[in-house]
Amino acid sequence: MKDRVTAKDVAREAGVTAATVSYVLNGKSTVSISEETQERVWKAVKKLGYVPNQAAKTLSSSRGEGRSKSNLIGVVIPQTEDGKKFMFRNPFYGEFLSALEYGTRLEGYHLLISGVNADQKYIEIAKNRSLDGIVILGMYPSDEIQDYKKSGIPTVMVDCYCDHDHYFHSVRTDDCYGGYLATEYLIKNGHRRIAFVSGEIKEIGVSYMRYLGYKDALEEYGIPFDEKLIINGTINYEFGIEAANRIMKSNLDITAVFSTADIVAVGMVKGFRKEGVKIPEDISIIGFDDVYDSIICDPSITTVRQNIEMKGAAVAELIVSAAKNPKCPKKQIIIPIEIVERESVRRL
Amino acid sequence: MKDRVTAKDVAREAGVTAATVSYVLNGKSTVSISEETQERVWKAVKKLGYVPNQAAKTLSSSRGEGRSKSNLIGVVIPQTEDGKKFMFRNPFYGEFLSALEYGTRLEGYHLLISGVNADQKYIEIAKNRSLDGIVILGMYPSDEIQDYKKSGIPTVMVDCYCDHDHYFHSVRTDDCYGGYLATEYLIKNGHRRIAFVSGEIKEIGVSYMRYLGYKDALEEYGIPFDEKLIINGTINYEFGIEAANRIMKSNLDITAVFSTADIVAVGMVKGFRKEGVKIPEDISIIGFDDVYDSIICDPSITTVRQNIEMKGAAVAELIVSAAKNPKCPKKQIIIPIEIVERESVRRL
Repeated sequence: MKDRVTAKDVAREAGVTAATVSYVLNGKSTVSISEETQERVWKAVKKLGYVPNQAAKTLSSSRGEGRSKSNLIGVVIPQTEDGKKFMFRNPFYGEFLSALEYGTRLEGYHLLISGVNADQKYIEIAKNRSLDGIVILGMYPSDEIQDYKKSGIPTVMVDCYCDHDHYFHSVRTDDCYGGYLATEYLIKNGHRRIAFVSGEIKEIGVSYMRYLGYKDALEEYGIPFDEKLIINGTINYEFGIEAANRIMKSNLDITAVFSTADIVAVGMVKGFRKEGVKIPEDISIIGFDDVYDSIICDPSITTVRQNIEMKGAAVAELIVSAAKNPKCPKKQIIIPIEIVERESVRRL
Repeated sequence: MKDRVTAKDVAREAGVTAATVSYVLNGKSTVSISEETQERVWKAVKKLGYVPNQAAKTLSSSRGEGRSKSNLIGVVIPQTEDGKKFMFRNPFYGEFLSALEYGTRLEGYHLLISGVNADQKYIEIAKNRSLDGIVILGMYPSDEIQDYKKSGIPTVMVDCYCDHDHYFHSVRTDDCYGGYLATEYLIKNGHRRIAFVSGEIKEIGVSYMRYLGYKDALEEYGIPFDEKLIINGTINYEFGIEAANRIMKSNLDITAVFSTADIVAVGMVKGFRKEGVKIPEDISIIGFDDVYDSIICDPSITTVRQNIEMKGAAVAELIVSAAKNPKCPKKQIIIPIEIVERESVRRL
């Protein structure tokens, strides 16, 4: 095995000093270097396959501008409670990450994917790595917000309702309107007893906003709100099965369900079918997200599409421009939504 | 916004030089510093929330040992042909990444996720970032292999049959035996006309190995091989639907399918069902991988489980030990497999 080629090796090959190599490579205009020397350096660079080291560049740019450039964007993905896994079982994250990576890569940035151990704070990783930007997915207001504010590292909050617009950029879906649209769609198809199945409804969170939309639609169409129809748990496939079982056991007399995540809707289809309840013949289901599993599911899931690719691209654009210019004005982008009609809702 | 706290700030606060701060923080034993001074520095570090910069550490360790330590592991995930997206639609990658991240994080490493533009070589990113290790998923022998060999960066090949054991660590499934097991399982359930549905069969690739296992099982049980039963395409859900359609149109008179990926098997279930062909009543299907979608699918898919979590953990262990000691002996780890019986195969 061969050790990494260094600027010193290039200097030796070109017969110049390491400083000269650095001047040529960085195009410093304060030092004048003959064209012949420059050519010799570039030849040596090519011959040895020398690649300037990012760490050195980070450090030297940090000395120059008082702010380092690592060209690294950190992504904070929700983890399981024991901290061992990312929530990749919700396909939303993989699809989002794909789009974000592409958008940032085109601008010369790479993504740092890191979970956080129970005894760690993400902000320490961020400082340690000289991150140029941070993308945070689905965070609730917490003490850590203060850390991000103080750090001064450009941050884009995705699907957060943290109300710190002065400090953070933000990209989210119009969750409240999405909840309204989904519920209205069911009502327009003749349904009036509609269960609302979601993750934990924390105030100032995505589920809460969709819940407000649900209530708003009921009110508009004169349908009384019934607390018994609200079913909460964890956003995953297993909870979908559980929610279906809860509904079947409790005689709620519903004809439709609005599930605030497709992955839960997919679990419900399975849970209902196991007990002989047919979708959409017996119960209609509408989801939210438009992840790939909503297409794969049989029947495919009618859902509220949040354009995940557009979301990833929007976040990429924001975080890159903020990384390049941390003092740029804060932006808030709302990704448009629409109903995608598939097979899981029937007209009564 | 507040700029990053530097060692200089700490020095000012503690009333010492920046060099002293560095000595204290790095515990250099060559310089003797009074306990009182040390305490003052640590107090200042705590007060200001100072975090030593990783780029500086990378550089200084690179000066010291001739080899830099970035504590970064690069992961090369297959991309779509246009380079815009990672293949995250195959849930294998998300599940694998989760396990890999956890295993490396515990040892103080982070993952760099980066695609490659058409005009780029990954190895340049790797050098540029001073990666301590690279994890490559599902690469076929190519010119780039030479780049990795020359770079001297510790590399773990996952699901590769590249035959460069001298240079690379390797983690893979026993694909050939897996293909054998899947086929034998169908045969033992009374099936003799068994289609083989897979991605492109490139020599020295995962599909090819599973194909060899398929042929081996047929031979052992005295079933003639029929080329018409080999159906190739791309590993995704859409191809599963297409493969089902091809089978229905071509009167192959099969009773079972071995699909070399669960995600394709899930597509086949959908494709068959659309045309009224029931799984497993009319056709039995066995998959490979045991990704989450094989459980979600209705009927759930009987499959060859490769323990993805174990695979991720094994790769983490290998790449971390290689990153710490690039001269450690090369290892090859074969992840055990087993049949997981679910609902998609019936006894004839």
